[in-house]
Amino acid sequence: MADYIAPLRDMRFALQHLAGLDAVLALPAFAEAGGEVADAVLEEAAKFATGVLSPLNGSGDREGAKLTEGGVVVAAGFADAYRQFVENGWASMTGDPEYGGQGLPNLLGTVASEMWNSANMAFALNPMLTTGAVEALRAHGSEALKATYLPNMIAGTWTGTMNLTEPQAGSDLAAVRTKAVPNGDHYLITGQKIFITWGDHDAAENIIHLVLARLPDAPEGTKGISLFLVPKFLVNADGSRGARNDAVCASLEHKLGIHASPTCVMAFGDQGGAVGYLVGELNRGLNHMFTMMNEARQKVGVQGLAIAERAYQQARDYARERVQGRVVGMAGKPPILHHPDVKRMLLTMKSQIEAMRALAYLVGADVDLAHHHPDEATRAHCQARVELLTPVLKGWCTEVGVEIASLGVQVHGGMGFIEETGAAQHLRDSRIAPIYEGTTGIQAADLIARKLPQQDGAAMAALLAAMRETAAAARRHEGAAFQTIARHLAAGIEALASATAWAQTADPAAALGASVNYLMLAGYVAGGWLSAKAALAASSLAPQDEFLAAKITLAAFYAEQILPKAPALSTIVQGGTSFAPHIPAELF
Amino acid sequence: MADYIAPLRDMRFALQHLAGLDAVLALPAFAEAGGEVADAVLEEAAKFATGVLSPLNGSGDREGAKLTEGGVVVAAGFADAYRQFVENGWASMTGDPEYGGQGLPNLLGTVASEMWNSANMAFALNPMLTTGAVEALRAHGSEALKATYLPNMIAGTWTGTMNLTEPQAGSDLAAVRTKAVPNGDHYLITGQKIFITWGDHDAAENIIHLVLARLPDAPEGTKGISLFLVPKFLVNADGSRGARNDAVCASLEHKLGIHASPTCVMAFGDQGGAVGYLVGELNRGLNHMFTMMNEARQKVGVQGLAIAERAYQQARDYARERVQGRVVGMAGKPPILHHPDVKRMLLTMKSQIEAMRALAYLVGADVDLAHHHPDEATRAHCQARVELLTPVLKGWCTEVGVEIASLGVQVHGGMGFIEETGAAQHLRDSRIAPIYEGTTGIQAADLIARKLPQQDGAAMAALLAAMRETAAAARRHEGAAFQTIARHLAAGIEALASATAWAQTADPAAALGASVNYLMLAGYVAGGWLSAKAALAASSLAPQDEFLAAKITLAAFYAEQILPKAPALSTIVQGGTSFAPHIPAELF
Repeated sequence: MADYIAPLRDMRFALQHLAGLDAVLALPAFAEAGGEVADAVLEEAAKFATGVLSPLNGSGDREGAKLTEGGVVVAAGFADAYRQFVENGWASMTGDPEYGGQGLPNLLGTVASEMWNSANMAFALNPMLTTGAVEALRAHGSEALKATYLPNMIAGTWTGTMNLTEPQAGSDLAAVRTKAVPNGDHYLITGQKIFITWGDHDAAENIIHLVLARLPDAPEGTKGISLFLVPKFLVNADGSRGARNDAVCASLEHKLGIHASPTCVMAFGDQGGAVGYLVGELNRGLNHMFTMMNEARQKVGVQGLAIAERAYQQARDYARERVQGRVVGMAGKPPILHHPDVKRMLLTMKSQIEAMRALAYLVGADVDLAHHHPDEATRAHCQARVELLTPVLKGWCTEVGVEIASLGVQVHGGMGFIEETGAAQHLRDSRIAPIYEGTTGIQAADLIARKLPQQDGAAMAALLAAMRETAAAARRHEGAAFQTIARHLAAGIEALASATAWAQTADPAAALGASVNYLMLAGYVAGGWLSAKAALAASSLAPQDEFLAAKITLAAFYAEQILPKAPALSTIVQGGTSFAPHIPAELF
Repeated sequence: MADYIAPLRDMRFALQHLAGLDAVLALPAFAEAGGEVADAVLEEAAKFATGVLSPLNGSGDREGAKLTEGGVVVAAGFADAYRQFVENGWASMTGDPEYGGQGLPNLLGTVASEMWNSANMAFALNPMLTTGAVEALRAHGSEALKATYLPNMIAGTWTGTMNLTEPQAGSDLAAVRTKAVPNGDHYLITGQKIFITWGDHDAAENIIHLVLARLPDAPEGTKGISLFLVPKFLVNADGSRGARNDAVCASLEHKLGIHASPTCVMAFGDQGGAVGYLVGELNRGLNHMFTMMNEARQKVGVQGLAIAERAYQQARDYARERVQGRVVGMAGKPPILHHPDVKRMLLTMKSQIEAMRALAYLVGADVDLAHHHPDEATRAHCQARVELLTPVLKGWCTEVGVEIASLGVQVHGGMGFIEETGAAQHLRDSRIAPIYEGTTGIQAADLIARKLPQQDGAAMAALLAAMRETAAAARRHEGAAFQTIARHLAAGIEALASATAWAQTADPAAALGASVNYLMLAGYVAGGWLSAKAALAASSLAPQDEFLAAKITLAAFYAEQILPKAPALSTIVQGGTSFAPHIPAELF
């Protein structure tokens, strides 16, 4: 497997022209992070991804993490790579300066996250989960808890986990049964959690678990769940590491992919009770967890993009080298990149990757603007768009990510099925992304039943208006490529608009049955919109070169070859599931 | 992983009402195989698949095949299962009675093949490859070769392999370098072949390799390739097993899936030359191989269907048991089968599986009619349809098979990513089917550049005419479901017709660039046509029951939720790859 090379020029183009990096850097919160800092961060992150993380991706997959008597031992090289990650300041990049973080924009964190995940998705999950835990603690923890835990967590010397799922409580967290019993200044936690990413490992000094649990007298359902902080090692009053807590990894899952990311069954309280501290208010745990869930979902969407980019690089490199047969209209034996069907596959990959990247960075910038823009209306507008687009980013990018990783296998032919080639690992790794942090079905339900109806659909209406402006600008632009873009984008927008109107009045069960197709429709059209913006931006720059010309070609390819899915999905959505209820369960 | 249960009622329905089993059984060649024989065969095959093959599917995946000093040793239970397979007569089911076969119709062999592959795809590859070798030998071998090898191969006591691929010769067989040097009454073969399915194993007494190789003075390219029979053990004049031949497994591939199917690197002639016998004419080896390639491709298409059925059964069973959250409009906590999005996923799986099954059986019956029908015009018509639909069956069913196996993972949520659940194995196993026996790109090129143009497109024109008749019949039928079916089917047919007209005059490179989407379009519309036929047949039967009503509902679901892809694909096809050539290779 060749090492990952960050596509810096593509990333910078998307940052500048689609996400509005300058507007983010102009926010008062980022006064110290100028364009030069941003540039240096990207350069160094790219080096770290290529030089340190990428070489461990294949070996980590083959070796996996192992459970020993002393706990989980990560694959060779991972602990050292994580040490370097912390020492180089990558863990603290976007962290709150009040607790030692560097306070860089979320947008830059998004780009770095793409790089970490392209280079080594199993590795990248550890800091991703830690960031989520930090955000939940920062938003809801007491000052004492924050002072004790945040500095080390933001520095990365301590990592964080999210303990939500139990065997009977997957998507349905109302069914959580883990218990928390008051015991002086803390609680004693007992119960079992499953699917805990990086739940135990030997790559950091301490692990801070955030755990959903119930008090004995708590109300049933979601309104009786509280959030607790349960450290692997207790922390002494002086901040030093104290006794081992009653929280251990009981077993590791044997998974399809991300083998180097230990997925733990966590046992709390087998020795009488794990010491835990309440985070936020009693019985508000689920709300507190939702604070970080949007961000976690955005980051998983970035994983879909990232694994697609990795799969693409590998397929492209193979197609540049591999020679098979002759090519219509070409002399000699050119590499298979020139076969029309291989070129179609690569362009299908690349055009969608660029669309996904634009969407991920747009949301990444909106998060910064929503938090830090001085104008309240702008903050509100950006926050509404973030909320609307988060399930789209998560669901669409991860579903397309799997498709692209699968195309990456296909480009390799028979070699793609051989594990040593590496293409199959990307497919295996990619397959978790549409599942964890809420399946695509959960994202789609969030989109159609919660996000879309907010403020009578104002966020989607604003998005459609912005898209129509872009389509109109493309139509006014000269050239066949722009006319193609304008035509298919306009059709896509109207398809999304009409499906949206249907969804807003549909029977709830029909809407839920159509929701995944609606989410995918929104993703494809958003991707087409941002591709068109990329083409318009590229055509406005001077001097023109092949890189800029390729942006226009890619947008036209996306319009012609991908966007026609939009009217079809709109038909499918509005066809609804009118016939589905008629099949008795026993005839499935 | 629950054991596979053959969906006998669905299979019989497709056999009777879509494939025309009675017409096949009425052929003089099958005078002895009446309806009762067919019924008994299906019942017994179902028992064998469930009782013997299915229980080995998971263990075979975990254990895999191993290379030892004495050759390849298959996973525990596989050798014994194969012995039973042979003893029960499953290997010889469709074999030529002249050499001891049972001479049953290919159509019944297709159904049995679906069962073997659903139960255990890795196991099923062994008899599948053997059948291919038998067909090539039967069509092109000398009487002496046939008398020596066919009886044991048809009985299954000897298995067969296909040795085509070399490291530099994958899709491009013109590049084959393996050498054959005349040496008395035989040839000495030297060279290395890769990706040889069941190339070595300990489950049969002998292995008969069919090997593509070149004479030293042969012309370059495809016209210098000859076909040789190279037995693992030479055969004495009395038919007994003789000396070990110079053909060994040099290594086993470590693959994404089908772990229990040994994929061998075969070394011929490391000790001076493997004894080989010419099959057919010198330098006509590729043509001879193509004899069995159509059939092998049909069988791989059946694998796509089969693995989808297995994945579906597993997902459905999980969805019937798993409880998560409440369901809109239902009291209590019903299993997740009732969640609208889960129902959508299961119906997406099932409706396409039934369409794929109908297509596979239709082609299976056409093969019998093409070979055995007394009327020459009928034979010609069926043969033309077989040739046209073979790449569609192979390409479409295997691509959709991967999608359905992936949906099967998704239905399981987080459990789907855990290997012990078994859903992930189906996805891993399924992923080879769009690659081997010619990638989807190769199938699509065959369809658009070779099959479609035959006789000025007469076969596709006849197919479109048959489809239009069905759409008209649906339109004449009462009821909302049939109106939905008629509307979407008619739109699909016109989409296929217009893409066909485009393809027939398109620039060759553009046609090849669009070919995979054209193939998928043809598959979806053919599936919609056969779903509609199923609905019409179901509505004509008495007494009506829920099983028949479900056929109508499934057809309507397919029309409404799957067929809208057809107009989109037609747009994509005709959009062509007009922009693709403009991107320089270095900007990929």
